[in-house]
Amino acid sequence: MESIDKKNVSPLEKLSKRDTIKLRKKHIGASVTLFFKKNPIKIVRGEGQYMYDEKDEQYLDCINNVAHVGHCHPHVVKAAAEQMGQIYTNSRYLHDNIVIYAKRLTEYFPKELSICYFVNSGSEANDLALRLARCHTKQKDVISIDGAYHGHLTSTIDMSSYKFTKINGGKKKKWVHVAPLPCSYRGRYTLDDYSADEIGKLYADEVHTLIKNAKVAGRSIAAFIGESMISCGGQVLLPKDYLKNVYKYVRDAGGVCIADEVQVGFGRVGKMWAFETQGVIPDIVTIGKPMGNGHPVACVVTTQEISKSFERIGTEYFNTYGGNPVSLAVANAVLDVIENERLSEHAVQVGESMMKDLYQLKDKYSVIGDVRGMGLFIGIELVTSRVTKEPATMLAEYVVSKFKEQRILMSTEGKYGNVLKFKPPMVFNHENAKHLLEKLDEILQEVSNSVQARTSSLSSIQSTDSVNFESFSSDSLSDESDSLISE
Amino acid sequence: MESIDKKNVSPLEKLSKRDTIKLRKKHIGASVTLFFKKNPIKIVRGEGQYMYDEKDEQYLDCINNVAHVGHCHPHVVKAAAEQMGQIYTNSRYLHDNIVIYAKRLTEYFPKELSICYFVNSGSEANDLALRLARCHTKQKDVISIDGAYHGHLTSTIDMSSYKFTKINGGKKKKWVHVAPLPCSYRGRYTLDDYSADEIGKLYADEVHTLIKNAKVAGRSIAAFIGESMISCGGQVLLPKDYLKNVYKYVRDAGGVCIADEVQVGFGRVGKMWAFETQGVIPDIVTIGKPMGNGHPVACVVTTQEISKSFERIGTEYFNTYGGNPVSLAVANAVLDVIENERLSEHAVQVGESMMKDLYQLKDKYSVIGDVRGMGLFIGIELVTSRVTKEPATMLAEYVVSKFKEQRILMSTEGKYGNVLKFKPPMVFNHENAKHLLEKLDEILQEVSNSVQARTSSLSSIQSTDSVNFESFSSDSLSDESDSLISE
Repeated sequence: MESIDKKNVSPLEKLSKRDTIKLRKKHIGASVTLFFKKNPIKIVRGEGQYMYDEKDEQYLDCINNVAHVGHCHPHVVKAAAEQMGQIYTNSRYLHDNIVIYAKRLTEYFPKELSICYFVNSGSEANDLALRLARCHTKQKDVISIDGAYHGHLTSTIDMSSYKFTKINGGKKKKWVHVAPLPCSYRGRYTLDDYSADEIGKLYADEVHTLIKNAKVAGRSIAAFIGESMISCGGQVLLPKDYLKNVYKYVRDAGGVCIADEVQVGFGRVGKMWAFETQGVIPDIVTIGKPMGNGHPVACVVTTQEISKSFERIGTEYFNTYGGNPVSLAVANAVLDVIENERLSEHAVQVGESMMKDLYQLKDKYSVIGDVRGMGLFIGIELVTSRVTKEPATMLAEYVVSKFKEQRILMSTEGKYGNVLKFKPPMVFNHENAKHLLEKLDEILQEVSNSVQARTSSLSSIQSTDSVNFESFSSDSLSDESDSLISE
Repeated sequence: MESIDKKNVSPLEKLSKRDTIKLRKKHIGASVTLFFKKNPIKIVRGEGQYMYDEKDEQYLDCINNVAHVGHCHPHVVKAAAEQMGQIYTNSRYLHDNIVIYAKRLTEYFPKELSICYFVNSGSEANDLALRLARCHTKQKDVISIDGAYHGHLTSTIDMSSYKFTKINGGKKKKWVHVAPLPCSYRGRYTLDDYSADEIGKLYADEVHTLIKNAKVAGRSIAAFIGESMISCGGQVLLPKDYLKNVYKYVRDAGGVCIADEVQVGFGRVGKMWAFETQGVIPDIVTIGKPMGNGHPVACVVTTQEISKSFERIGTEYFNTYGGNPVSLAVANAVLDVIENERLSEHAVQVGESMMKDLYQLKDKYSVIGDVRGMGLFIGIELVTSRVTKEPATMLAEYVVSKFKEQRILMSTEGKYGNVLKFKPPMVFNHENAKHLLEKLDEILQEVSNSVQARTSSLSSIQSTDSVNFESFSSDSLSDESDSLISE
């Protein structure tokens, strides 16, 4: 291995950080972006809710929902290593791991959802969900939510306005219908004008309108796909009765309902699946990220009826790695830990306590426009004005960069990149929460002081409704101006 | 774990085989098929070119090209287990494994192909290749080969006539143009009528015609995608100069050329990549299966120029597991073994020796219509008549079922399922080859005797040109009538 820089290689590295960056620039597609592009982090090990760089500096991980039961959980590592030494082959041979997991998994679902298809990624799962829906309904179109992200494939990008709107020349496909983001804070129907009981139905009616318009245009809906809590769209909790009404409209139109639980499933929000908080039963559920704690494994869960439609048209579904014994050993081990360590209950306790503290911070700083969350799924929306709700995008980026200095990994979400996203490994504890909130308080206090000083007046960030945060752009963020775009 | 059948659980199992089957029927989509549906095999461990069932019966694996360096190779298992205990996170953080592998990998390619995108499966790789091609050319259509298989996703199935023609109501999409399978044995241009030097150009001219017709219809070609040796299409070697001419036509039309090396790459055919046997340099190469020896990892390799086009439109390509440190630890370890054990040279030696012996068997049995191969990629095409070349599909299935009785795992390929496919782990050795060919000889001899006896005449399988193999259908295959459909 040629390396110019041999003296700066720590015992935890094979290459110096400089050489790693150099080779990455040379050989990895530039579209594959790094966190903190201008000064990226090199991570060499992880444990629980912590990651460590090449200098063994500890970072508190507040964003990696994939490392669900904690980075490198020994029970999961052991299960994977043992199975890897036994057999690592495809699902055309019988194996116990796949059926044991399928049985355990489906016990967490309403009885209708009894059939599993194992795949390698959430993207593959959502693509297969689309195939199943189209096959079952013999219809083609899809309704997805504005700001949604459902995967990196041709088909799933077409369904993800979060993606296709960001690609130059990216156009919405005719078979895709984009429903407004059902946010109660920002959007067409908010708590400013409506009661919490009305909003869900009003946003669902927008979906109804899309269905009717599609029909007029001679089109028909195969599926509605939506996260049961919206992640990339801005950590948005669905309003009461939203899915209940949407599912009814979609089913009346002959479509099926897909719940994308790839980011929010496996107990994060206090229920095993986020759709449970909406009192609905989807026809197809996709799960992924937390399922393998880092290992590429995902799954589509559906009904016997939909599965039979797929079989009936003569499909042979083969996925080289889908359902292999190692992926399922990992998935079984992850489920063990979720159960044994009561991680969902833990998430509720830590999350509820955090929400209380965040409401206090909201009272203190007017830049916090909204705080929303459930369990260890929390969004903190920053605004320059509580009246206009203008997104404080630069400030959010600044906060993230200040967190990085404090060795806390945070990130932003939402159409305007102004929502601080909190979605940590589920072992994130009360002490971590306390630390995080203290630092957030400090950062916002510093911002507040700085604004006060600069405006040279008594109208502070704490008492005015509108503040200019342009000052936090090119200056403060000179080295960290790239936001953490995450999915 | 509820289990009715506790007494039949071997020490290597968690469930009895009966319970495994029962749970599989209950919870796994029926479209996910098993080898030998009616009497499937339960595999509990693997080592080198062997797999073992729950009774510790040894099977010789002649079909699993994924277990490239041998099932559960200790060097690979060790590398994976170690990395899994350190860090298993996404490629937004710097890590040495990804860049070291990218450097090593691209050294095996012509210098133009210097950029890597890591994904989880061959399907994801081919989908990304399609995205790259469309983005770079700003054109939409794709030419693929009849009988091709490029993956299980919506987009890749559309490009795979092997798949979409088998789905009831499955129609070719307008953006897909299917070129004839360039087979020198069966098809439009064969060695019966043309010289080996002419065939490649003639089949390439068919692609040229497709391009011209597309143009007349107002369509334009983004890409030609083709395996550099055709796997599912029937273990077909491309005729001389085929890709050279096809690539020229495609590039003249503004398209790019994608070589799908997911099944045939990594030294199997004596060259690292099968496209090298055609003297061409593709614009995009997809690799997968052997890359991780069972672990879900795949890659798209392309040029700086195409990568830049992708970046230019504003793409941020994020793949949750793509390029993670564990997948790349595995890929690096696989590459170590390929290099250290000189597996490609080994493949050539064993393969050449097998081809010689297979030509002898072809002289002996007229049911062998064609034998073709390179390295450890071999196809044996069975026919009922050498004159009409009618596919001996039932016979091929019968041979596979007889092999199973002998604890040899073989499978069939091709549009008619009459091609015995040989694509074993690369550690398959001379002794294994001798055993396999002895058994094939025995099976064909038995078939020959049986036909002779039944026709009660001296016109035997060895001397006539046409034999009726219907007798090998429902009777002989009562328990094994399902062929091994493989991808």
